[in-house]
Amino acid sequence: MIPVLSARHVEAAVSPERAVEAARDAFVAYAREEWSMPPKVYVPAYPAGDFRAMPALGAGHAFLKWVTSFPGNPARGLPTVSGLVLLSDASDASLRAALDAGAVTALRTGAAAVLAAETLGRQDAETAAVIGAGVNGRAAAKTFLARGRSVMLWDVDEQRARAVGDDLGADLASSREEALAADLLVTVTPGHEILLPKGSLQPGQHVSLMGADGPGKAEIAVAELARTRVFCDDWEQASHNGELVHAVEAGAIARADVTELGTVLAGLAPGRESPGEITSFDSTGLAIQDLAIALAAMERAGELDLPTLDL
Amino acid sequence: MIPVLSARHVEAAVSPERAVEAARDAFVAYAREEWSMPPKVYVPAYPAGDFRAMPALGAGHAFLKWVTSFPGNPARGLPTVSGLVLLSDASDASLRAALDAGAVTALRTGAAAVLAAETLGRQDAETAAVIGAGVNGRAAAKTFLARGRSVMLWDVDEQRARAVGDDLGADLASSREEALAADLLVTVTPGHEILLPKGSLQPGQHVSLMGADGPGKAEIAVAELARTRVFCDDWEQASHNGELVHAVEAGAIARADVTELGTVLAGLAPGRESPGEITSFDSTGLAIQDLAIALAAMERAGELDLPTLDL
Repeated sequence: MIPVLSARHVEAAVSPERAVEAARDAFVAYAREEWSMPPKVYVPAYPAGDFRAMPALGAGHAFLKWVTSFPGNPARGLPTVSGLVLLSDASDASLRAALDAGAVTALRTGAAAVLAAETLGRQDAETAAVIGAGVNGRAAAKTFLARGRSVMLWDVDEQRARAVGDDLGADLASSREEALAADLLVTVTPGHEILLPKGSLQPGQHVSLMGADGPGKAEIAVAELARTRVFCDDWEQASHNGELVHAVEAGAIARADVTELGTVLAGLAPGRESPGEITSFDSTGLAIQDLAIALAAMERAGELDLPTLDL
Repeated sequence: MIPVLSARHVEAAVSPERAVEAARDAFVAYAREEWSMPPKVYVPAYPAGDFRAMPALGAGHAFLKWVTSFPGNPARGLPTVSGLVLLSDASDASLRAALDAGAVTALRTGAAAVLAAETLGRQDAETAAVIGAGVNGRAAAKTFLARGRSVMLWDVDEQRARAVGDDLGADLASSREEALAADLLVTVTPGHEILLPKGSLQPGQHVSLMGADGPGKAEIAVAELARTRVFCDDWEQASHNGELVHAVEAGAIARADVTELGTVLAGLAPGRESPGEITSFDSTGLAIQDLAIALAAMERAGELDLPTLDL
């Protein structure tokens, strides 16, 4: 009798504020090597998309997310990101819960985007913007709002931006340029097109690059990324499947140029060092973040009337 | 509304005979590169055991098995092998079914053991034996019986052997030596102890070595393995996590000495070449076999009254 948390259960159990805390704890535990994460495995089903098996180990649990990235799915009424999260007890191997992977992914992606922006952005940052109003862009905007910050939305599909803005109570940017100029910028696009060409970021800006999490994806030009102080969620993942791939291949950025966000949060490495720096955060999405969200959801499982999976 | 197949549903849907057919088809499709299999990922939780994420792609489906190997679990009334199999549509990413991983694993392990024995054993082989009467040993014995062959059982725990023998209608070997001398031998032990020291196998014997599927496990001495004609389920897996690890590290066996079973079944490589050869099959367990069992189960899903997982 394994509890099943559908998307609405996950959302009821974990607020965006709680997700930010959980993501922070996961980054710190990973930086301190208390939690671990074998490399994620891609199962290619191109051109439609890919499946990913993302394992993690932490807090007495073994974790697996089986999740998709099918960018063409929304056009046929299906989600880009879907699948199942499995949480097991690492001491006796028993399966403890199954959770909707889309909801867990959105919560932790929004949390990581905002956590990076708050950690690396200027202390006097005022404006925040999210470019891309899909499921995970919506989650990032919702997280900014939950943290008490107003946020501008922009999407190539204006209707979509408007629908999400109305739903969340977020403003629409008057133009892409206005959004791109925000002090705290989050990009959550499919990564097929460069949003940030050379010279587009201004001194003191921060950008959380959430869209490039697989082969061939990029939201920022290599030359522009090289202008920023670069942070990432995980060097191994980011240098193989994130924005950093292109910059590393071009020889523009090396391991020593990049700081993992967790080391900053754990006090092991400096974050932003001057108000004029441009900071960037390359997010590829970590299984340890998903694990933290799943554990946070389970803290509230007793309060929810959950269906079960009977094996 | 995703159908869930518990162990009893899987067993009702897929007979051992059907499992052998399915395993054969999977081996052939993999040898022909029609099906593919990214490397399985181990999530270590030692000393208790490990979790494995095993992906595969074939027949229009993406597949993931999240499964454990906790050898100490039976002593506390829990299964060594447990977890969940997830079957997804590779064209639209939708989750199609969740199945009990223990039942799928037992069916395909039994099927692979017997398929290898029938393919590589002497044509005039008479006696068959299974050493190790745990869940997967039981499945191998059941598969031999379903294929119309009598089988001897032996286990270090005689009570366990007797219980399984009574249940299946299989004979007990009078001694470990009698079992080890069978024409078609299947070993399904935890792999902590060498069952087959140097010189123990006789000309013309076949052994399917099913127990060694992870770090440090072995059922046969390197020197004895080197006396046999060596087959395996998958060179990559077997040379990293199977019996072959030790022999490859010792320089006793190289890639050119080993034939994958699928290439024999597909007619791409010879199997046994003389009645006096000793043949061995190193099984590490392939996700493609699990995929084939899951697909076979789904063929019968309409006939079963299945619970559902609602996301």
